[in-house]
Amino acid sequence: MSTHPMWLPDEVFRPLGSRRVLVAVGPDDGPVAQTVVDEVAAATERFGGSLTTTTESDPVTAEVAASQDVILAIVPGVAVAGSAATRMVPRPGTAERHDPYLPAIAAVLGERFTLLRWATIGSDSFTTLRVGRTTLVMADGAAGLLYGMHALVRRGDSAFADTEGETWWDGPVHPIRMLDHWDNTVVHPVMGQVERGYAGGSIFWSEGRVRDDLSRVAQYARLLGSVGINAVGLNNVNVHAAEARLLTDHVGDVARLAEVFRPHGIRVYLSVSFAAPITVGGLDSADPLDRAVQDWWTSAVARVYEAIPDFGGLVVKADSEGQPGPFAYGRDHADGANLLARALAPFGGTVFWRAFVYDHHQDWRDRSTDRARAAYDHFTPLDGRFDDNVVLQVKYGPMDFQAREPVSPVIAAMPQTRLAVELQVTQEYTGQQQHAVYLGPQWDEILRFPLAEDGRTVAYLAAGLSQHHGQRPPTAGLVAVSNVGDDEFWTGHPLAQANLYAFARLAWGEEDPIAVLDEWIGLTLGDDPAVRAAVHEVLDGSWRTYEKYTAPLGVGFMVRPGHHYGPDVDGYEYTAWGTYHFADRDGIGVDRTRATGTGFTGQYAAPWRDVYESVETCPDELLLFFHHVPYTHVLHSGSTVIQHLYDTHADGYDEVVRMASTCAAVQGKVPDAFFDRVTQRLAEQERSAREWRDQLRSAFFRRSGIPDATGRRIY
Amino acid sequence: MSTHPMWLPDEVFRPLGSRRVLVAVGPDDGPVAQTVVDEVAAATERFGGSLTTTTESDPVTAEVAASQDVILAIVPGVAVAGSAATRMVPRPGTAERHDPYLPAIAAVLGERFTLLRWATIGSDSFTTLRVGRTTLVMADGAAGLLYGMHALVRRGDSAFADTEGETWWDGPVHPIRMLDHWDNTVVHPVMGQVERGYAGGSIFWSEGRVRDDLSRVAQYARLLGSVGINAVGLNNVNVHAAEARLLTDHVGDVARLAEVFRPHGIRVYLSVSFAAPITVGGLDSADPLDRAVQDWWTSAVARVYEAIPDFGGLVVKADSEGQPGPFAYGRDHADGANLLARALAPFGGTVFWRAFVYDHHQDWRDRSTDRARAAYDHFTPLDGRFDDNVVLQVKYGPMDFQAREPVSPVIAAMPQTRLAVELQVTQEYTGQQQHAVYLGPQWDEILRFPLAEDGRTVAYLAAGLSQHHGQRPPTAGLVAVSNVGDDEFWTGHPLAQANLYAFARLAWGEEDPIAVLDEWIGLTLGDDPAVRAAVHEVLDGSWRTYEKYTAPLGVGFMVRPGHHYGPDVDGYEYTAWGTYHFADRDGIGVDRTRATGTGFTGQYAAPWRDVYESVETCPDELLLFFHHVPYTHVLHSGSTVIQHLYDTHADGYDEVVRMASTCAAVQGKVPDAFFDRVTQRLAEQERSAREWRDQLRSAFFRRSGIPDATGRRIY
Repeated sequence: MSTHPMWLPDEVFRPLGSRRVLVAVGPDDGPVAQTVVDEVAAATERFGGSLTTTTESDPVTAEVAASQDVILAIVPGVAVAGSAATRMVPRPGTAERHDPYLPAIAAVLGERFTLLRWATIGSDSFTTLRVGRTTLVMADGAAGLLYGMHALVRRGDSAFADTEGETWWDGPVHPIRMLDHWDNTVVHPVMGQVERGYAGGSIFWSEGRVRDDLSRVAQYARLLGSVGINAVGLNNVNVHAAEARLLTDHVGDVARLAEVFRPHGIRVYLSVSFAAPITVGGLDSADPLDRAVQDWWTSAVARVYEAIPDFGGLVVKADSEGQPGPFAYGRDHADGANLLARALAPFGGTVFWRAFVYDHHQDWRDRSTDRARAAYDHFTPLDGRFDDNVVLQVKYGPMDFQAREPVSPVIAAMPQTRLAVELQVTQEYTGQQQHAVYLGPQWDEILRFPLAEDGRTVAYLAAGLSQHHGQRPPTAGLVAVSNVGDDEFWTGHPLAQANLYAFARLAWGEEDPIAVLDEWIGLTLGDDPAVRAAVHEVLDGSWRTYEKYTAPLGVGFMVRPGHHYGPDVDGYEYTAWGTYHFADRDGIGVDRTRATGTGFTGQYAAPWRDVYESVETCPDELLLFFHHVPYTHVLHSGSTVIQHLYDTHADGYDEVVRMASTCAAVQGKVPDAFFDRVTQRLAEQERSAREWRDQLRSAFFRRSGIPDATGRRIY
Repeated sequence: MSTHPMWLPDEVFRPLGSRRVLVAVGPDDGPVAQTVVDEVAAATERFGGSLTTTTESDPVTAEVAASQDVILAIVPGVAVAGSAATRMVPRPGTAERHDPYLPAIAAVLGERFTLLRWATIGSDSFTTLRVGRTTLVMADGAAGLLYGMHALVRRGDSAFADTEGETWWDGPVHPIRMLDHWDNTVVHPVMGQVERGYAGGSIFWSEGRVRDDLSRVAQYARLLGSVGINAVGLNNVNVHAAEARLLTDHVGDVARLAEVFRPHGIRVYLSVSFAAPITVGGLDSADPLDRAVQDWWTSAVARVYEAIPDFGGLVVKADSEGQPGPFAYGRDHADGANLLARALAPFGGTVFWRAFVYDHHQDWRDRSTDRARAAYDHFTPLDGRFDDNVVLQVKYGPMDFQAREPVSPVIAAMPQTRLAVELQVTQEYTGQQQHAVYLGPQWDEILRFPLAEDGRTVAYLAAGLSQHHGQRPPTAGLVAVSNVGDDEFWTGHPLAQANLYAFARLAWGEEDPIAVLDEWIGLTLGDDPAVRAAVHEVLDGSWRTYEKYTAPLGVGFMVRPGHHYGPDVDGYEYTAWGTYHFADRDGIGVDRTRATGTGFTGQYAAPWRDVYESVETCPDELLLFFHHVPYTHVLHSGSTVIQHLYDTHADGYDEVVRMASTCAAVQGKVPDAFFDRVTQRLAEQERSAREWRDQLRSAFFRRSGIPDATGRRIY
């Protein structure tokens, strides 16, 4: 079975590959620099350009450099200034190996540009400028050069247009840009091989061990590297017995994967069980304050670093949904996280400690307990107690990856703690890659949300752009759960590739999700304007369409328990999961106010603690998350809650029907296999959206007894 | 792990085993007669009695016979008359081999009894009489002798009491008494090894093949034989790929099981896929009118009979819940059933063709389609078209083994067709062997129900006690889905053994389910009156208790979809399964009347077609099965529907609490392992019943807005 190339079909390399390219990297720049050389070699061979390299013994001459269309060079601590005096601070021990070719590059730059070097620029960033007919990409390090090369690829011919003097600097906003894979090494009897995976089996694992053939992983690593992902978690955060051994006797399997990811600037991470000292270590305790437990982790981690010197670190889901954790020993999560952090610290490793901790044996009869409160209540008292190499990984919302929920207050509430915000690329609650739902706009809303009292946004807080916490290292960035599997199209629904792409680009720092989508369309499907328009028509508003025909006004869930697909109004209503809507014959919603409800609104800083508290100021789309209101309550939109429900469900379905006809019109303009898969998925989306529409309209008509004012049929 | 002896602990053989016993069987009476000899040998050896046998060359003398406490004899065509002239018709070729010992037995009988032989008595029946101090059991054939011996065992010492002249005839009411096992040979990823099994894995199969060690099967066969079961289906009616091979290359596995069941008078049956000619036969069709298909079945069945000369026949679920069937070829179910019947006929085999055919892709929006109608609509037009060796197997109710539903009208509607009524011993919808639910009273109600216009009951119709259909062979009897697995107690919940026992005894013809339960208690748990009283207190009313705290007034379902355990009021409400209750803010129930509903009431003969049609005459317990009524509708009981729901759910839970405390009081009086398992299950029943209570009370309060008049708390 051939594998779809996603956003890197050969054709996108034509503009670069048809030109004369100098790749100027020093000796020992490592495997990522070699990847740049290899990419340019392959592209120029395919499209008739040329590759020139430069070595210490035979450095490139200024003449040769000047004859290039493109120069890709590592210039440590580089910056380019058009004028003015900027202090140049060579970084000790790094510049020398590149000096042989720097004069040639300086000659190309000529008089109007000054090549500067300084010490603080990130190794992931790069500078591009046009001098005469030459396009120069200069990066501080190999990863930056790789990203700079792919930036050229994405820009296509326009990167080489005659715009003399144009310069641009680019670097990632988020230091860590991570994809977690919820892959089991063996097929789990209930969850399958990839938990919440909707695109086939794992590309990493087969029958408990790493796959023999890792060519697919290599393709994946290349794709991720091209868009700046720099970390991957290799296994499910729910760690079962087989996966626990990856930390110990199967660490060689992890090393093989690390080797495949390394040339693309990506470090690998393992999810571990907090109980590993017992389950694989043979100890009788996993108490974080127990010296034997500490020693066990120290030596287990040391052995991992023997096998993988650039191992990224550990991901932990502890005391959550049945996973073991420090609570069993009367310890808190700072004790737990620091236990692992101290084992990792000598090697520069990091522990990602998930904040998804709540009581999943809640009694539905108890209306005072509120799952939304749990992460804040558990973690904010620990602020300041985590070691520097602990990252607290916080889901974007207080519940669980719903299509609509407020931003988690935890993100603004722990200034002394490194934080990563967790998104979900895999569409667990957003259509499971059967529904075309482009999540870029949702993530954009989340990232732009001014959560902190001083207006700092979620993106700002996650990236650690201001170091309000003094001496702490920068915070972490964004993490997301991947949506790939061994499916031909990687993501089941071919259009779901756009979500993977968008996550990486937004994590990099791109701010316009529709522009990102546009970029993805061009790379993946080429330049046909009809195709471009159709995909935009289908995807631009697809998240809001999905929101329309599913759970209304932020109330969440209403999905089938277990697999979470399709409607079930009361499916979670009387369960132990803490996910309720309390719909009765009169009204619906969860009272989370301080005045009369669970008090969750009090976890927010101003102004949100007051905005959400009042039914007058609470935004419509979150009304039922924060308030229990009558069906006849009038929204800011002017509609009542019940009529809003009737309307959005009818309209949402109609929009899906239009999406399907929009797609049908581009038959023949995209590859048949791609078209066929999308068409098949749209048919399912239409069926499913119709179920959502009719079940919710019927269920709430049966409860409320209020007819649809528009007279549309209710079954 | 030791296996619980169920109702045959060694101790129950003491009364028989401590006596002098003559087993008088002829040569060639076969393996079942040998089982009688072996049982008596083991019992007398254990308890100090003696076994005497008689052979052709050395026949027992009248003197020896007269000195016995017990005589167990095969006397073909036997009957005993105290006086009067009854014609004796020796059956050709059968009497001779028993004649050597008949004079001795006649001598024991003496003058006051006349030993008669006739031809029509069933080989499964037996006659018992007391002459002096001797208890004689005489049977027409080996199976009858086995049953007669076990009847003595069940009666215990009282069977040997000095009641000179007492005679009793006993024989089964139902010619076929069958247990179907929904066992997969391999573990199904969703359904497990035993579909709807709640007692561990299959006792027959392991990893696709018959188990090596069949000692457990032998125990099971002995237990079933002791209570008159004479047929077992060995595999799941949903036939997957691995199981399809039992008919072909794995038939040797079936033969091994047949060998184990044979000595206990039990024939084995296989469930087959209608598509077998394609899936295992390599044909491109399974069309019943296709000659190649007919030939395939003919030779497949012939090969089975080569391996198993007394093979019972086939069980088929066709065109049902995704199973293939004749509809695919535009044929009807008579065509389908007769196809298999004709392959079986030359060998005396029977096909059990299940009538559980309905549209499981129903659109919930369509209120005119009624799953309850399906079996009648599909099958009654075919009455008279089935071959003599086809048995139509009809579930007792029109839906699916609910704790409460009306009796299926099909049972009285096909006079020209052999019928078997199917019950469910495995507690799919009745607590899954976590809840103590003694089903005897439910089955008794079903069997006694006067379904036919002339008052004939379901039991009467199933047994074929009157041959209204002229030249047809007798109808079939009762079939049930077994509840056993490889669990230590066979049935998960030890008290669920009583259901297995009761099914067999009611199929035999016993009419008082509480007396049957009493018998089971004595055999299984001994004679402690406190234990006896406690088990009665727990089980006698347990079915009605279960009914109270689950779906009310015959409305059915309200279980969690898929696994069917625990409450979910709307779980099936918007599905494709045809199982709805239409509860809204005003009322609940399904209108199945002719006047305004689906017309299902019209499938019943008088008087039921009218009794059910009218809300005035419809019994309370089936009200919501037949009518959609307001919550305020007043029942015959005087309560309203909603108050009934509130009350029964509160009361039902309270009854479970009392059951648990009743059980707790017998600690130490029953074996610890038995007690512990029951206690553990009762805790789960209490938890589950509380969920049922609170969820239903809350859900219907939320819908109706009507408070519980008793003021009990609604969450």
